[in-house]
Amino acid sequence: MGNRLEPVTRHHDEKLQEILKTSAKIFAEKGFHRTSIRDIARAREMSLAGLYYYFRTKEELLYLIQERCFLNLLQKWERAATADMDVRSRIRVFAENHLGFFLHNMYEMKVMAHEDESLTGEFQDKILVLKRRYVKVLMDLITELGNQENGQGVDARVATFSLFGMMNWIYTWYQPKRDLPLPELINQMLRIYFFGILKGGAIQEAWFTSTNSGTGKEAFSLWQNSP
Amino acid sequence: MGNRLEPVTRHHDEKLQEILKTSAKIFAEKGFHRTSIRDIARAREMSLAGLYYYFRTKEELLYLIQERCFLNLLQKWERAATADMDVRSRIRVFAENHLGFFLHNMYEMKVMAHEDESLTGEFQDKILVLKRRYVKVLMDLITELGNQENGQGVDARVATFSLFGMMNWIYTWYQPKRDLPLPELINQMLRIYFFGILKGGAIQEAWFTSTNSGTGKEAFSLWQNSP
Repeated sequence: MGNRLEPVTRHHDEKLQEILKTSAKIFAEKGFHRTSIRDIARAREMSLAGLYYYFRTKEELLYLIQERCFLNLLQKWERAATADMDVRSRIRVFAENHLGFFLHNMYEMKVMAHEDESLTGEFQDKILVLKRRYVKVLMDLITELGNQENGQGVDARVATFSLFGMMNWIYTWYQPKRDLPLPELINQMLRIYFFGILKGGAIQEAWFTSTNSGTGKEAFSLWQNSP
Repeated sequence: MGNRLEPVTRHHDEKLQEILKTSAKIFAEKGFHRTSIRDIARAREMSLAGLYYYFRTKEELLYLIQERCFLNLLQKWERAATADMDVRSRIRVFAENHLGFFLHNMYEMKVMAHEDESLTGEFQDKILVLKRRYVKVLMDLITELGNQENGQGVDARVATFSLFGMMNWIYTWYQPKRDLPLPELINQMLRIYFFGILKGGAIQEAWFTSTNSGTGKEAFSLWQNSP
């Protein structure tokens, strides 16, 4: 039984991924509230009935997009960060993971930034839990760094959301053809964040060489199984 | 004639400001496309005919909100920056101006972040001109700083939009009751941006004392004439 069901389940999941990818693109371009299920059906060349086999409401689609993003980010982070890294390296890996993921999933990035208030009820609660868990990872790292440095540190919330802000704002300005390629972009942002723009962040280069962990396209696309 | 007209004009402008302020709040909460002119009429306790005396379309409202923001920001910046300041101080003043303005106009901040693609045609073109002019102010300052430092500098676009990102992201997380008051928030963000989070940005404190220029509430509200 299990063997016979498996291909069907995998097919279902791949199909759902394609639908979510298309939906994220349309939500990003038209906005969630202005998008109709009909728009998505048209783009995917599916019937409405065919679409509704994979989800029940438009809101569930938005929920599934956001859930996959957070689960993916958390999973990749847990794989990338190892116990032997010092806290600065772990912050760097977190940022590489976050930026790399979103640069390959820009529509999802925009949807998450713009539609974080479009979910209601249980969907909203569940995403909030994931979001808090994800934010807490970075805030804990920054608090740990602050304790180590033992200086008149920076407020952990300001430091945490400053980094998220730098990174998440990218969807508003980044043009792949005009701007730096991903590894350099990450490197420059982290130099600013760790060392500041004075002297162009050029301090302690030694430990700052990028690990290049997971900056490849394959590793990052949320939708690697899709065409 | 001029004297007799003036009070009428001033009244017209004050009334329009109130309408724009209310519209920004509703656009921020419901989204531009989901807001109807009826929503605004209800909130302002005005008739539809009364409202349409001040503007012609909902899109014009959005345009006027964005135009006022950019003109206000540019005007305040030109007043605040003086020729005798070094480039670092001018960057600090730019950031103080930007953050101070938006912390007192959070609805407008959110509308500008979320609805920058909702304008079309001439409205869109005009706002784009203002936006580019505003972004160019900061980018020129950062380029000047980079030339002075003469190091293997940070990319000007990355540095410029990193600062905008840190600042503009605030509308997603800042809670006045929980977080640092405005002058400290600005100070901390600038310490991160100039010196980095390592050592909590605690370098060269001497020149870094806030100028406190225009961090008062009065100086910053876009709608100072409104109740």
